[in-house]
Amino acid sequence: MAAQAILNLGTKIVAVGRNYAAHAKELGNAVPKDPVLFLKPTSSYVQNGGTIEIPSPLEALDYEVELAVVMSHKARDVPEASAMDYVGGYALALDMTAREIQSFAKSAGLPWTLAKGQDTFTPISAVLPKSMIKDHDNLELWLKVDDEIRQKGSTRDMIFKIPFLVSHISSIMTLMEGDVILTGTPEGVGPVRAGQKITAGIAGFIDVHFDVQKRQTKPVCSD
Amino acid sequence: MAAQAILNLGTKIVAVGRNYAAHAKELGNAVPKDPVLFLKPTSSYVQNGGTIEIPSPLEALDYEVELAVVMSHKARDVPEASAMDYVGGYALALDMTAREIQSFAKSAGLPWTLAKGQDTFTPISAVLPKSMIKDHDNLELWLKVDDEIRQKGSTRDMIFKIPFLVSHISSIMTLMEGDVILTGTPEGVGPVRAGQKITAGIAGFIDVHFDVQKRQTKPVCSD
Ligand SMILES: [Mg+2]
Ligand SMILES: [Mg+2]
Ligand SMILES: [Mg+2]
Repeated sequence: MAAQAILNLGTKIVAVGRNYAAHAKELGNAVPKDPVLFLKPTSSYVQNGGTIEIPSPLEALDYEVELAVVMSHKARDVPEASAMDYVGGYALALDMTAREIQSFAKSAGLPWTLAKGQDTFTPISAVLPKSMIKDHDNLELWLKVDDEIRQKGSTRDMIFKIPFLVSHISSIMTLMEGDVILTGTPEGVGPVRAGQKITAGIAGFIDVHFDVQKRQTKPVCSD
Repeated sequence: MAAQAILNLGTKIVAVGRNYAAHAKELGNAVPKDPVLFLKPTSSYVQNGGTIEIPSPLEALDYEVELAVVMSHKARDVPEASAMDYVGGYALALDMTAREIQSFAKSAGLPWTLAKGQDTFTPISAVLPKSMIKDHDNLELWLKVDDEIRQKGSTRDMIFKIPFLVSHISSIMTLMEGDVILTGTPEGVGPVRAGQKITAGIAGFIDVHFDVQKRQTKPVCSD
């Protein structure tokens, strides 16, 4: 199957929070003993070159650059030692976050869905086949807003590594072909506003660019 | 399309919390001003007659009987007046919940995913075509554990009604064909343990039964 088509088969995005110690710290969170997991819907994808939409009445969203792991096979209770056999490739993704909504949800004991799951909240690159990436534990992720560097980090600094994450998540919920794991963001997260532009990449492999605009709500829309 | 096949097309389950005032109260929660929304993955479905699995080290899960709304068309920003045109049918579902995990998540400001999204946490009936249900606002939902009635409620008591929910959710995240909305549970939620049996239904339309067992973790599993 073409690497890109696999994302259309997927049914979920499982995102990992606080997987880089320096990022956990910048948001005032403890480094977790177990991975913090949450779901994003596949309806939140935007392909490279698309537009990230800020829903009213928000004025900004936070960017979080992350390595996305794309599953090639259904995986349930897979051991860490063979977990990579279920991975088909990688992509560069942004875990866009409505930080004020998330902060309120955290203090009110509410789910993170509104903060993380809205349309256009998961910009994602083309999928790189696994064979292209010799060492997934030594990739440099970077992100710029309007040509100013904001995030730069190495997957080497992940607290929970990819084989562990695949194994662990597969013990909780079956991963399906095309499902994606977002592996967390390094430090440097911050807001983007309408009219700004994000570029981001995996150094030496791929880069992406997205415009940021306010979301225009159409009164009636069907197709 | 056959009513049942549509669930296989879906990519998400959007669940509504605290949509019956008496249930919000029994868990000590305020009646919300906006719907409380969270995601469950489609990997959590179990078909009628299947087994609900309690993951180790838990000893029980809470049942929550709910009316499921199944989308027939992609819906984004649909107005309340035409929202029902995007609904293809209904089902009876259980929103199984690891209540201790949810309580911890709420107090720690963490996502509800582990409490709500594990395999077998969304038992679901066959899909009833919309044409069978004359009045979706007057359906009696019931649930028994080992032949003892535990929940009985009417969809008439929903705080947020189905057309509003479809419209509201579609303004946040695009609903796709086969996506499901779980519309919340009436009062009477409580625990089930391994060896017990749940029966539940929409009075006059459909009923389902599920066994409850501890989850057996296989050390290696692939397919
Ligand atoms: Mg993130
Ligand atoms: Mg999903
Ligand atoms: Mg529920």
